[in-house]
Amino acid sequence: MEYYKQSLALHKQLKGKIETGNKVDIKTKEDLSLLYSPGVAQPCREIAANPSTVYDYTIKGNTIAIVSDGSAILGLGNLGALAAIPVMEGKAMLFKKYGGVNAFPICLDTQDTEEIIETVRRMAPVFGGINLEDISAPRCFEIEERLQDLGIPVFHDDQHGTAIVVLAGLINAAKVVGKNLFDLKVVVNGAGAAGVAISKMLKGIGIKDADGMAVKEVIVCDTKGIIHGDRRDLNKPKIELLNYTNNNNIKGTLQDALVDADVFIGVSGPGSLHQDDVKLMAKDAIIFACANPTPEIDPGEAFEGGAAIVGTGRSDLPNQVNNVLVFPGLFRGALLSRATTITPGMKLAAAHAIADCIEEPTRDRIIPCTLDMTVADKVAEAVAKAWKEHLQEEIAVAI
Amino acid sequence: MEYYKQSLALHKQLKGKIETGNKVDIKTKEDLSLLYSPGVAQPCREIAANPSTVYDYTIKGNTIAIVSDGSAILGLGNLGALAAIPVMEGKAMLFKKYGGVNAFPICLDTQDTEEIIETVRRMAPVFGGINLEDISAPRCFEIEERLQDLGIPVFHDDQHGTAIVVLAGLINAAKVVGKNLFDLKVVVNGAGAAGVAISKMLKGIGIKDADGMAVKEVIVCDTKGIIHGDRRDLNKPKIELLNYTNNNNIKGTLQDALVDADVFIGVSGPGSLHQDDVKLMAKDAIIFACANPTPEIDPGEAFEGGAAIVGTGRSDLPNQVNNVLVFPGLFRGALLSRATTITPGMKLAAAHAIADCIEEPTRDRIIPCTLDMTVADKVAEAVAKAWKEHLQEEIAVAI
Repeated sequence: MEYYKQSLALHKQLKGKIETGNKVDIKTKEDLSLLYSPGVAQPCREIAANPSTVYDYTIKGNTIAIVSDGSAILGLGNLGALAAIPVMEGKAMLFKKYGGVNAFPICLDTQDTEEIIETVRRMAPVFGGINLEDISAPRCFEIEERLQDLGIPVFHDDQHGTAIVVLAGLINAAKVVGKNLFDLKVVVNGAGAAGVAISKMLKGIGIKDADGMAVKEVIVCDTKGIIHGDRRDLNKPKIELLNYTNNNNIKGTLQDALVDADVFIGVSGPGSLHQDDVKLMAKDAIIFACANPTPEIDPGEAFEGGAAIVGTGRSDLPNQVNNVLVFPGLFRGALLSRATTITPGMKLAAAHAIADCIEEPTRDRIIPCTLDMTVADKVAEAVAKAWKEHLQEEIAVAI
Repeated sequence: MEYYKQSLALHKQLKGKIETGNKVDIKTKEDLSLLYSPGVAQPCREIAANPSTVYDYTIKGNTIAIVSDGSAILGLGNLGALAAIPVMEGKAMLFKKYGGVNAFPICLDTQDTEEIIETVRRMAPVFGGINLEDISAPRCFEIEERLQDLGIPVFHDDQHGTAIVVLAGLINAAKVVGKNLFDLKVVVNGAGAAGVAISKMLKGIGIKDADGMAVKEVIVCDTKGIIHGDRRDLNKPKIELLNYTNNNNIKGTLQDALVDADVFIGVSGPGSLHQDDVKLMAKDAIIFACANPTPEIDPGEAFEGGAAIVGTGRSDLPNQVNNVLVFPGLFRGALLSRATTITPGMKLAAAHAIADCIEEPTRDRIIPCTLDMTVADKVAEAVAKAWKEHLQEEIAVAI
């Protein structure tokens, strides 16, 4: 592909896509005395005496780490820490461009769950949040979960970023085809990081009073077919999926799952959905074929099979399902409100904020453009509001 | 102090003195495709296939971590990781301003030697060098030493940065008073990170053919007086000092050590040297009173006691002994030459480069001004040259 050659040349020319910069210049000895020694002793003393002032005097309040172990880089697989750097730098660019957030790539020379958790804890002080990235399933679930007590938001983007933008797209797609979101039958193909998070999100797991947020049915498939209660080859995250997916314990192949389904969400690999499969689905089927760069099905084929709306991960096709719409605004909102975690309510608020960016969705426009600079602000606002509501609920419960 | 109030206000206004920035803008979907997905897959693949190309395609080649555990912040002591951030940010500013090096602060939530070493190893992939900072003695010695096999330069600035600028100043001070550097009797007061490194450096430890680089005698004092072979209260680094200091095993107080000494180097605390002590020293005594912000002795008193030259850590007095003259250029040179470690020869080259910045040293000008933007380039060049010579020697030995 031509892209690959050009990208390589551009990376070689830049030798790093991000850099650090000084927010003010050092011109005089007085500048030095205020920004460094001896003046700097004073903010140090203040922080030591009152640790929360670290947000007043340092970069912590607007700086996050993008942490990867390189075990699941894009669709490339386990290439290790060094090879992960270009992706993490790219991600850092997007955080800055869209969210105004300082993001620094930390690529870890370990793929051991315990060591990753330990290392993130130890290096956390300078960061106001941790974006986990390209860490393979099922380790990614445990790593994220066990870091939730860190006191700063820890968010695995491959899970929730994708889930949030998928829900945003689905909200608008349902409107376009005139179906009620909560009546939908959804098939998720792929039970990795994204598949699990999408299923949770669509079922409103963790949302109080989830009735208003959950779709009717989600069936998840992996490479061996439908995930059901009689399978003995399921890992812990897949077993947990059974608590809220596949209510009727249907067995069989992806095709069996697709019968009368309203929505197919592919977070799997190229070629896993065919035109004939789409024909099995309900009228006005919605297809999100998110495998990147080659979708699960070519949009043309999907339409011929009867799909009404098709989204992919590709920037050169309509309805790009891309989590760049999510993470910059989500972290900005979390940092602005000094959230200590990202709650399910904040994720839901982010999805609705993204969906609401489009006043009148159409078949070709259910999701805002990835270059739309206004999305992150709206997401940030909605996320910060959701955190405040969460705090108020906590207070109400405490009283 | 007025400085402290102003500094606090400035820190509060800035909320972080550094930031990340994008080296190119993202304006189009094509930009996104080249800088991020799908194009970014290609540099990832290249690096996975040939790890050394990470220097061609990422920030690694010009980016270092400033790592601290907050155990010895400035003269403030052990204030912990959060309180260390303002200092590390200030340091990062100086790296950028003078050396053009991206430096990112990593403040560790552990003060355990093993955990610090382990954490630095795990987070190293994205960095081309590690500047250890404000880690208390004697742990700092072991941490630095055991990380020398990391494959990138690991340099504890409180040790060697200070030692290098002290040697630079001493080279020129000796010229001014007409003494031969190698005939000097030097008393180092303070046996922490800086004191040990200064002693090593002045004795040319690790330098091949050190005859031309070593001063005649170094005597080190700690709070209990002269460090000598009959003391039973010495830790390992102090015991090792005896291999090359206090050749005649002199015992007694700082005052006993000072008799006929040519040089006093204070890396201790305010008020530890008095006018009467200076009178004990040889004619044309050289005093480096580096305690910050209050020197070991007021320069006026030192001159009245008979000193010929006085240097301090203060920016408002002549002859400021400040390692900002060292670390930006030193790391720049090491990164440019892709040095895998900082050798004693590179440190010596840095000291001479700094001394050579002043063509005709005088009593009031033995060290360049900390704001002199030309110093770092000269240091970088000398350091890179020294690394190349080191490699050639290695090759010569191998042949």
